[in-house]
Amino acid sequence: MSGTLYVIGTGPGSPEQMTPEALAAVSKATEFFGYFPYLDRLSLRGDQKKVASDNREELDRASVALRRASEGVDVAVVSGGDPGVFAMAAAVCEAIEQGPAEWRQIDIVVTPGVTAMLAVAARAGAPLGHDFCAISLSDNLKPWDVITRRLKLVAEAGLVIALYNPISKARPWQLGEAFAILCGILPPSTPVIFGRAAGRPDERIVVQPLSEADATVADMATCVIIGSPETRIIDRGEKSGLVYTPRFIAGASK
Amino acid sequence: MSGTLYVIGTGPGSPEQMTPEALAAVSKATEFFGYFPYLDRLSLRGDQKKVASDNREELDRASVALRRASEGVDVAVVSGGDPGVFAMAAAVCEAIEQGPAEWRQIDIVVTPGVTAMLAVAARAGAPLGHDFCAISLSDNLKPWDVITRRLKLVAEAGLVIALYNPISKARPWQLGEAFAILCGILPPSTPVIFGRAAGRPDERIVVQPLSEADATVADMATCVIIGSPETRIIDRGEKSGLVYTPRFIAGASK
Repeated sequence: MSGTLYVIGTGPGSPEQMTPEALAAVSKATEFFGYFPYLDRLSLRGDQKKVASDNREELDRASVALRRASEGVDVAVVSGGDPGVFAMAAAVCEAIEQGPAEWRQIDIVVTPGVTAMLAVAARAGAPLGHDFCAISLSDNLKPWDVITRRLKLVAEAGLVIALYNPISKARPWQLGEAFAILCGILPPSTPVIFGRAAGRPDERIVVQPLSEADATVADMATCVIIGSPETRIIDRGEKSGLVYTPRFIAGASK
Repeated sequence: MSGTLYVIGTGPGSPEQMTPEALAAVSKATEFFGYFPYLDRLSLRGDQKKVASDNREELDRASVALRRASEGVDVAVVSGGDPGVFAMAAAVCEAIEQGPAEWRQIDIVVTPGVTAMLAVAARAGAPLGHDFCAISLSDNLKPWDVITRRLKLVAEAGLVIALYNPISKARPWQLGEAFAILCGILPPSTPVIFGRAAGRPDERIVVQPLSEADATVADMATCVIIGSPETRIIDRGEKSGLVYTPRFIAGASK
């Protein structure tokens, strides 16, 4: 009989932002598969085993976990944030679709989590207070021209834009080019929030106007939120400003 | 001296999906402001007071809470899901911007939560596994032509679409019209997920192809997720199908 495969979201990193449901799933599994910084967030018992892998090996990792579940082991595949957002839940589904028929009979339990953009938004004010989108800037996963086309369309649509995977050593120029594209569509004063490690001790939140947005502020652990033309900053003097997107647009029916 | 104003997200509804951080914030406040079904999710002490209001009175509710905080009371403004997504964090910011100068000096602490689309996605598979957006379908908040323009642009961009506030007694036709608009752009087989009360005992997840999507399946407590042209369903026989959006699009750089 197959084991259960849990797909677990740890939240942004602070244990205080991980749900009891996710913690309960951790207690049920005996083998844990994930990128090592996410596995390191878990406090495991002596009978629970970690199998760490690199962050570019999602599909292989998912396949190994599914094979172990098919052998009767309760396993967990671990993501930071929410496992359904640019993370392991989709990789597990891909592996199931490509894998042997018996993998389709494995019980899959996904526990949602607080994804990075929500944690960053909470620290900045309410930038996601109205329509928004989440786009991965990684052209390891899709062609760059698909990404630029999407950026233009969502900016024209007036959506706030959360960028995941904004930059890495292997992808140093994409974020700067994304800012340049958006500068041609959005007002120069549009707030850009660089949110790193939100909710953790090494948290860093930086807000810059789009026309001066400096891509080198971001790293792999940063979620970048670019406002819409409606997004505003409330000046609070010595306190940090509140960045927010109003819930209303003039001309509503009521 | 002012009190602190906590903006709390309860998550989708199950206590198991509320973060310890949000629970800790609940323990610190003494007056709670919110729409009554969300307040009812909290277990409060005898010295903690609930002030319930209707779900159309967000700005007034935020102003009353800010006034109480300015009088030295630690208060909490409560949202379901994540307070930053179509919820009270933006209303609090609006009230601060419009209110007396001293409100800008009140400490604001927003605790993020699992927003509805993440909870629904976790139950369905991984429909938000690649680029996606969240759009409120309420034309109480913005003109209907802004909504339809946004729907067309994000569908053309190939984003998965999560619709919040899809329908209500006062807005019965908008969801059906949204489906009709999207039918003109997306394949007829595009999966549509109706996710009601995800994670709660009365949970109901229904998946229909876009060409047959029935708006009457939705109610106020439903989040509707409409796939992109990439979104697929893995048939699992007697088990419910897994709806997912692959992480890859052909033609990526690597």
